[in-house]
Amino acid sequence: MNFASDNTAGVSPEVLEAITQANTGSALPYGNDDLTAKIEKRFNEFFEYETTSFLVPTGTAANALALSALAPSYGSIYCHRDAHINCDECGAPEFYTAGAKLVTLHGPHGKLHSGELETTLSATSTAVHHNQPAAISISQASEAGTIYGLGEIHQLSEVAKENGLYLHMDGARFANALCTLGASPADMTWKSGVDVLCFGATKNGAMSAEAVIFFNQDLAQSFGYKRKRGGHLFSKMRYLAAQWDAYLTNDLWFKNASHANAMAQMLKSGLENLPGAELYYQVEANEVFISMPENVLKVLENAGYVFYRWHDAASPVIRLVTSFETKEEDVKGFIETARAAS
Amino acid sequence: MNFASDNTAGVSPEVLEAITQANTGSALPYGNDDLTAKIEKRFNEFFEYETTSFLVPTGTAANALALSALAPSYGSIYCHRDAHINCDECGAPEFYTAGAKLVTLHGPHGKLHSGELETTLSATSTAVHHNQPAAISISQASEAGTIYGLGEIHQLSEVAKENGLYLHMDGARFANALCTLGASPADMTWKSGVDVLCFGATKNGAMSAEAVIFFNQDLAQSFGYKRKRGGHLFSKMRYLAAQWDAYLTNDLWFKNASHANAMAQMLKSGLENLPGAELYYQVEANEVFISMPENVLKVLENAGYVFYRWHDAASPVIRLVTSFETKEEDVKGFIETARAAS
Amino acid sequence: MNFASDNTAGVSPEVLEAITQANTGSALPYGNDDLTAKIEKRFNEFFEYETTSFLVPTGTAANALALSALAPSYGSIYCHRDAHINCDECGAPEFYTAGAKLVTLHGPHGKLHSGELETTLSATSTAVHHNQPAAISISQASEAGTIYGLGEIHQLSEVAKENGLYLHMDGARFANALCTLGASPADMTWKSGVDVLCFGATKNGAMSAEAVIFFNQDLAQSFGYKRKRGGHLFSKMRYLAAQWDAYLTNDLWFKNASHANAMAQMLKSGLENLPGAELYYQVEANEVFISMPENVLKVLENAGYVFYRWHDAASPVIRLVTSFETKEEDVKGFIETARAAS
Amino acid sequence: MNFASDNTAGVSPEVLEAITQANTGSALPYGNDDLTAKIEKRFNEFFEYETTSFLVPTGTAANALALSALAPSYGSIYCHRDAHINCDECGAPEFYTAGAKLVTLHGPHGKLHSGELETTLSATSTAVHHNQPAAISISQASEAGTIYGLGEIHQLSEVAKENGLYLHMDGARFANALCTLGASPADMTWKSGVDVLCFGATKNGAMSAEAVIFFNQDLAQSFGYKRKRGGHLFSKMRYLAAQWDAYLTNDLWFKNASHANAMAQMLKSGLENLPGAELYYQVEANEVFISMPENVLKVLENAGYVFYRWHDAASPVIRLVTSFETKEEDVKGFIETARAAS
Repeated sequence: MNFASDNTAGVSPEVLEAITQANTGSALPYGNDDLTAKIEKRFNEFFEYETTSFLVPTGTAANALALSALAPSYGSIYCHRDAHINCDECGAPEFYTAGAKLVTLHGPHGKLHSGELETTLSATSTAVHHNQPAAISISQASEAGTIYGLGEIHQLSEVAKENGLYLHMDGARFANALCTLGASPADMTWKSGVDVLCFGATKNGAMSAEAVIFFNQDLAQSFGYKRKRGGHLFSKMRYLAAQWDAYLTNDLWFKNASHANAMAQMLKSGLENLPGAELYYQVEANEVFISMPENVLKVLENAGYVFYRWHDAASPVIRLVTSFETKEEDVKGFIETARAAS
Repeated sequence: MNFASDNTAGVSPEVLEAITQANTGSALPYGNDDLTAKIEKRFNEFFEYETTSFLVPTGTAANALALSALAPSYGSIYCHRDAHINCDECGAPEFYTAGAKLVTLHGPHGKLHSGELETTLSATSTAVHHNQPAAISISQASEAGTIYGLGEIHQLSEVAKENGLYLHMDGARFANALCTLGASPADMTWKSGVDVLCFGATKNGAMSAEAVIFFNQDLAQSFGYKRKRGGHLFSKMRYLAAQWDAYLTNDLWFKNASHANAMAQMLKSGLENLPGAELYYQVEANEVFISMPENVLKVLENAGYVFYRWHDAASPVIRLVTSFETKEEDVKGFIETARAAS
Repeated sequence: MNFASDNTAGVSPEVLEAITQANTGSALPYGNDDLTAKIEKRFNEFFEYETTSFLVPTGTAANALALSALAPSYGSIYCHRDAHINCDECGAPEFYTAGAKLVTLHGPHGKLHSGELETTLSATSTAVHHNQPAAISISQASEAGTIYGLGEIHQLSEVAKENGLYLHMDGARFANALCTLGASPADMTWKSGVDVLCFGATKNGAMSAEAVIFFNQDLAQSFGYKRKRGGHLFSKMRYLAAQWDAYLTNDLWFKNASHANAMAQMLKSGLENLPGAELYYQVEANEVFISMPENVLKVLENAGYVFYRWHDAASPVIRLVTSFETKEEDVKGFIETARAAS
Repeated sequence: MNFASDNTAGVSPEVLEAITQANTGSALPYGNDDLTAKIEKRFNEFFEYETTSFLVPTGTAANALALSALAPSYGSIYCHRDAHINCDECGAPEFYTAGAKLVTLHGPHGKLHSGELETTLSATSTAVHHNQPAAISISQASEAGTIYGLGEIHQLSEVAKENGLYLHMDGARFANALCTLGASPADMTWKSGVDVLCFGATKNGAMSAEAVIFFNQDLAQSFGYKRKRGGHLFSKMRYLAAQWDAYLTNDLWFKNASHANAMAQMLKSGLENLPGAELYYQVEANEVFISMPENVLKVLENAGYVFYRWHDAASPVIRLVTSFETKEEDVKGFIETARAAS
């Protein structure tokens, strides 16, 4: 009955099993083990591209380290004002980039808008008084639970290229976006102009497994030192690699993400037509943002359903997040309770 | 047959089992779960003290974050020249402290010597031209596999107090040191004047579990923000907490560490009297530094034993590290092979 | 005929004379000289307060160093989106604070609005995911050439106090603001709740002389180390102090600033009623922002008048900046030329 | 009678005169003025090379900014343990490089020894656990008042090249070294393999004028942003340029430095044979390090002579620094007083 976050979910049994299987004998530490090498190859197959990849434990680490490979200390990184890197990482990007500036834009649907970006970039100057444009960061899916179409990503990458910027994708919910688009991992990344992807598995069934995937391999040169320096190089790396091994096997990522997405659609369908209910964002991944009458929310909360009021505790807009573990019966129960109270 | 590092070992079955047990239902993320709360209390019992504690995944993260709580950017941190924080963390302490300076001392046995420290400190000045003394960092056990006696720690903490410095203990091999000294966790930390301990479990049977334990709780105030900012706050924290739960249950830490220490003593006894062999450091924890004739080393390497040449590949001094998984038969085999070749 | 910036002006003869006078005999370096000590006392008299003050050569250094005393690395600094610290210092505040975040607000007249600030602050949370509110920074006069009334400063300082923040004033044009308000230095700073002032003299007749004035002396404790560490501690400090000595003698600051302000008012009066002309901001200090027909601007440019197009080269809004050196005949000539072309 | 530092001296009349001459009319700010452009050309003539140069106000700023162009945050900078960048800049290099590590060597005569450097470098590894060798920094003249011969610089630059490092020269007393060697500026820099020079004028007659001279122009690309970001870009740059203009005109640098050097030689000759006196370092520039009996030092101090006890207040080794302003009569008086007391 917990719709607060996909972080409240546990770990897929397949992932736990892989960790257990990895626990045999000794292995070279710090990513020099066979399993890590295997995963690096699997990423290449998954993305149909020669990538350079690095495993790290958290999404914040992945994003901040990746951005530090794209932006100098005097650089600017363009992102949506609601982006996780701007709002929810306590300044990790500024820390890892030694003080680069996040320039926030206000695009609709929680997404960067290429027109607004172009306007902003056209007003920048190379004079030494100003931070220099360095990178664009988008989240796929976005914090609003919306999805960039392939055309939108491509357009943003065109703006990036024209202005000499790199394109970063925060893929904490990458699998959810893939499922929605029905695109291939290649389509949604390097074929659309993405230079580096933070590929998240934690929110979708792993324990703590993220990967920084460089399609632009030149950018990866000093990443190993920075990962170590940030304290993110695991000695017993095989257990991180094992999580990825399970995640990419038998399309676990797809199975988990499509379930979560389906649950979100079920919530949407069941709630959007209730009296006084109104969707706040389109439901395109595993998040539902919807306003409902305060009395209904109170009933739901009293019934034990857990979710966030969006913006603040008094807001009638709530966020419901589904995960690979969300049970259909809980979704149905939520809808029934809301309907009864409406 | 791998004596390269305690990082090549796997994970204790008890730890894996605890992770599996933790995988039921939803839990509040980011350390707000019950298991993390339980562990925080267990640390207080373990150390017989009201502590403030933070779980992090790696020893480098633990050390660098802890030091950032002790030293300002213009501060100096005094450590042994062979300290892990100085040699093996790719500058993580400088990164997390925003550029504090590690001042290295050369004490014998791989340990800081309070006399040398006092001499160094007496030559410092409060003038703005110079980094200001901020903290002392010791490793227990040290990188040389040696142990500070309680009196030695106390003496260093006296120097710290007299000079207004904080005392940090890198406890990557804390359990090994405890076993050797037969002291209580309280004895070896706050009772000896330690302000903050980096308590490591990873090298002794955990998967990736370290804890920063503040005895001086005032120092902990901004740690939560810095941990998040460093990307070290786990969303699914319960799996980190579960490792600690197993580690502290039924004295697993003791069982594992005392086995590793015993294996090191067996190696020492079996090797030190061989012709041409000479101990390089006292064997006080789970590491043996010993020089042996080159031809013997060659035979051992050809037989498949894995270990590091100390300092460089041509050195006849080798480092042998034992762990909770080291098998007595491998130790015996190593000794037999060395003896036969001598 | 240069209205591009008050930085294009030279140095007041009184300031040059003071530098020359200071060039006799030897003096203790690094601010331990008599002249620096004298200036520190003069600041106390000027502000009618016991201050701790530090001389630095540039406004960017003053602002960034001052902010580093107010905000931790995980802190937020609230400022206007057009603030110099946000737009024109190439990320110096982020550099000196080790990555604090500038949160930009959009108040009218180029000034922070206490209501907008309160709304923003009320939406912040102490959770570790978010940068923590640390300081408010206002510019007096603002980048728009407007002035905060004493009541406005007081109101902002109330918001600061209620939220546990510090109040920083960027006073690059402090004297211009003082002249306009007819207030005392004390009124416009500590009596209105300012914790630290960056007091600029460079734009108003000095060569390169700024001062960081701490009214909240607790905040000054580590400033000396940070100034040195930033490379801003002058060895031959007496020549910096000499500039301040001249600046504060015989009200040179007032003489210079009131002339500059008067020249701006003359420009405003002569231009605002021309056909097609429209003031963009109120003229309250030494800057005039005004839109004029493109053909008039072309005539002015061709006649040799130098000024900036505001925002970009195609904008019909121009910025005219006057200084202590601006000649009345140049102002009259500018107005005549514009009138003739209109 | 002040031999404490060359920083206690004033400013050459020629430099003051140039500043006064520069004070006419308006000039483009931030180094876009004619005088700054002129100086950049003069540097090219002075060094017989196409350089990229940047004016900054202090030696600490010059060194730290220059090093930030040579070393990444995970880099190592090799310097003498007594180097100004290591001992006297409160960690400015660590600050500007975002935490690079100064690795200190112990060469005799206060100079780096290429053999010791090679040994140290040969023990480094490219593994991610370790800071990566990035630059070598030497001081010419050194903090010990000694001088690297051209052959020595060349040898160090060979070591640098073989190991992929850059060579930085701290030239706070560059002119003094030039005079001693009788070499050309070209000889002592790019012809000997120096990549970047911090060329100091402040200690030798300027007010506050240093220049960072890039012979390896690729390294200069982001320097302008970093200078601004550090707060070291002067708005009224012409007054910095004017100091350099005077300094390079009529060989003022040579006149001043050769006088200072001659005064140091006079001190040396007059003191070294006194009973109980012993030179501590060779006198090769404008500094004399000498031990003398405590009773003699007391007499000198009581007579009003000002100098530093080296290392600490109780040391019988003193440092005497001469400058362009040092009077022959003061030197003679010092020697006479010492002789009478011996």
